[in-house]
Amino acid sequence: MAVYTHVDDDALADFLACYNLPPATTFKGIAEGVENSNFFVETADRRFILTLYEKRVDAADLPFFLALMRHVVRAGLPAAAPVSDENGDYLQQLAGRPAALISFLDGTSPAEPSADKAYKAGVALAQLHNATGDFVRTRPNALGPRMWTLMAHRLSPRLDHLGTGTGKEIIERAAFVRSQWPSDLPTGIIHADLFPDNVLFLDGQVSGLIDFYFACTDLLAYDLAISMNAWTPEGSADPTCALALRRGYESIRPLTPKEADALPLLLEGAALRFFLTRAHDALHQIPGSLVRIKDPRPYLMLMRQHREAPTRFAEMAG
Amino acid sequence: MAVYTHVDDDALADFLACYNLPPATTFKGIAEGVENSNFFVETADRRFILTLYEKRVDAADLPFFLALMRHVVRAGLPAAAPVSDENGDYLQQLAGRPAALISFLDGTSPAEPSADKAYKAGVALAQLHNATGDFVRTRPNALGPRMWTLMAHRLSPRLDHLGTGTGKEIIERAAFVRSQWPSDLPTGIIHADLFPDNVLFLDGQVSGLIDFYFACTDLLAYDLAISMNAWTPEGSADPTCALALRRGYESIRPLTPKEADALPLLLEGAALRFFLTRAHDALHQIPGSLVRIKDPRPYLMLMRQHREAPTRFAEMAG
Repeated sequence: MAVYTHVDDDALADFLACYNLPPATTFKGIAEGVENSNFFVETADRRFILTLYEKRVDAADLPFFLALMRHVVRAGLPAAAPVSDENGDYLQQLAGRPAALISFLDGTSPAEPSADKAYKAGVALAQLHNATGDFVRTRPNALGPRMWTLMAHRLSPRLDHLGTGTGKEIIERAAFVRSQWPSDLPTGIIHADLFPDNVLFLDGQVSGLIDFYFACTDLLAYDLAISMNAWTPEGSADPTCALALRRGYESIRPLTPKEADALPLLLEGAALRFFLTRAHDALHQIPGSLVRIKDPRPYLMLMRQHREAPTRFAEMAG
Repeated sequence: MAVYTHVDDDALADFLACYNLPPATTFKGIAEGVENSNFFVETADRRFILTLYEKRVDAADLPFFLALMRHVVRAGLPAAAPVSDENGDYLQQLAGRPAALISFLDGTSPAEPSADKAYKAGVALAQLHNATGDFVRTRPNALGPRMWTLMAHRLSPRLDHLGTGTGKEIIERAAFVRSQWPSDLPTGIIHADLFPDNVLFLDGQVSGLIDFYFACTDLLAYDLAISMNAWTPEGSADPTCALALRRGYESIRPLTPKEADALPLLLEGAALRFFLTRAHDALHQIPGSLVRIKDPRPYLMLMRQHREAPTRFAEMAG
């Protein structure tokens, strides 16, 4: 959710002219994405999302993200793709920031996940993994187990408002998860943030995968674990949607036995990762920022759930 | 700027069905309005703004606002109008809140005011005042001089971070402005918040007046004063746009001599009013809120400017 930057009409018209587009007839900041400013832009007969990349996104990563989005669209998946300007470039400057014009996708994100939509999101995730098997660029995951142990140590002294001992628990779990983290599972491009917000549906079918700005190279089954957590209703430990998502995923790309064995640990790690970043953001809230601080507690609960009942979310898909 | 409430797909479909509309093909939270949640909604061939009224808006005022919007549109002004449901009602419930479906207006708001657009906004403001002369409902202005003196006393102890003596200055100016406030000027419906954000332009012409949720019954020339301040670039004391806005206004509705005489005081009062509400909001920021806290300091500066050089913004329009 973000609109950090104001864009002047004249600057917008100049920007659109680089794409041989007329001035905008509609231009509205939209509540999408947490790292960037996003706008709905409409010209005479076309519509786009304009994304301004704010400083939380490393400009050096933008060519990776934009190339990945193009690759995914070329592979036939319903994803948002950057549009090229009259020089064939996908990246411009606007209001002092890197900016891209992205195709607009119809559809709405489910505010409350259902098993049916979770299944279809799982299918789409597996298709994404298959479609990026021949994508040649790579990007290391900066938010992996090594970073979790660093973040756990840094945040630990400030976590006990979530319950006495939480700081110590987080350090221990980060160390454990890191020590057990598998290194012999299939890797590839992962979306790494496939929350319901980032999946559009139209007429009951997936019509769009969006927000590729956490995508990186990592364990494919870890992406499944992130998504299974992400589709679990916040604050609940109901595995219905998570299991449906896994069934959808495995209908396209069955897990290897090693992946299936590792899933409980990957689920705990995925919960830890989102707990840590949410706890960090909550402790480092910027006054005047428009980012809605997400509650870290549901991920603390989910992390404990995965540790205490490791098969509940990871039972063999039916 | 606000999206406070999540709306479930199924609830949205049920809501739209009350208007005999099919399910949404697009549904995005937008960064518009500070008091309510706003969404861009598109069905097969129509587009709307969906507004959910959050608790800062008194539900008892909603019939006034919605009737006013309809009146303004019937008078031929380019304003957003509520759409009636199949029962002829303009107000529904959605996600536990009062909700209205509003016509979508093309156009973009100027991020940086220009004299040309300010002039046209002034014309539109005068047209709005003329068009509402026969509107029979009234709504007292809760944010008038009486409230300013109360707010000044309440905020005073917490204002000295803006400069030693600011708290005392604000109490004094609120008392002075209130003591001098005119009671014999023409009254009517005022928009009370006609910032550049709330005026859409298309092809250089005003295509939409939006956000009527501060509208009330008050001095017409005070509305002009609010708008003249609002179109002054924040942090500047450049009167170019303010004077252009006044010229536009007077091209349709010339001020009476008494209104013109009162304008310096009305400008100071209008600056004080926005200083006070911004200072209040900055001191009462709700953690996790999506409202961007606006800086009160430009309005402190503008208030002093109007006091120290009362004719600078109020010279006779040429």
